[in-house]
Amino acid sequence: MSTPSGHTRAISAARVKGTTIYNTAGESIGHVEDVILDKMSDRILFAVLGFGGFLGIGEKFHAVPWSLLDFDKERGGYVVPLSKEALKAAPVYDFSDLLQDDGAIGRHVNEYYGRKAA
Amino acid sequence: MSTPSGHTRAISAARVKGTTIYNTAGESIGHVEDVILDKMSDRILFAVLGFGGFLGIGEKFHAVPWSLLDFDKERGGYVVPLSKEALKAAPVYDFSDLLQDDGAIGRHVNEYYGRKAA
Repeated sequence: MSTPSGHTRAISAARVKGTTIYNTAGESIGHVEDVILDKMSDRILFAVLGFGGFLGIGEKFHAVPWSLLDFDKERGGYVVPLSKEALKAAPVYDFSDLLQDDGAIGRHVNEYYGRKAA
Repeated sequence: MSTPSGHTRAISAARVKGTTIYNTAGESIGHVEDVILDKMSDRILFAVLGFGGFLGIGEKFHAVPWSLLDFDKERGGYVVPLSKEALKAAPVYDFSDLLQDDGAIGRHVNEYYGRKAA
C-alpha cells in the first residue's frame, strides 16, 4: 500500500527533523522540531512544531497530530490544514512540557485539531 | 497513564537515535539507528537496529518492532527479548530497503518477532 502520490509510506523519523511547515496560506510557520513517540505502544503521540525565537533562544512549540502533516513536494515541506488564526489560538508549550506528556497532550491536540482542521 | 516504572510515556524520536541495544544475555548487539514512521497514520512501523560495519562502512540493519524495545535504566539502553541465535536468523536489510517499505516489512517483522520473542 502506498501514498496517493505513489510513494512508499515509510519515513525516517531522523530525517523529518528540520522540515519546514506551512499553513494553508502557504506561509512558513515553523519546522518539525521532533516527533514524540509512545514508549508503551507503536503509536506516534504527536509531532512538535517549533517556531519563533532567535538563535535558539525563546523558541516555542506547538504539539500537532502527526497525521495532520501533509508533505507538499513543490514546497518541499509539510502543510498543516490550519489558518494563521487557528494556530495563533493553539496550545503553546516549552519543550520540556512535551516530554512530560502522559498521553494527555496527545489526546488534547487530537481534540483541538479535530475541531480546527479545515 | 505512565510506564510501570512511573515515568512519562512520551519519548523524543530524535533522542532515541544512538541508544545501545542489548540482547537477553546482556550483550550489546547494536544501536537504534532510526525509527520508521507511517506517513499515512499515527503508527510507528518499526525501529531500525544498526550493527556491524567499521567506520560507517558495511553496517547492516535489522527491523525490530518498536514496542519490543524495553529501556533498561541500569544498562542505559534498550533490551530486546531475543537470544543471539534468534537475532542471527532475523531478516537483515540495507538502510535503503527499509525506506522502500510499503508496510510489508512492518508486517513481516511483527510476525517474525511474534514467533521468536521469548
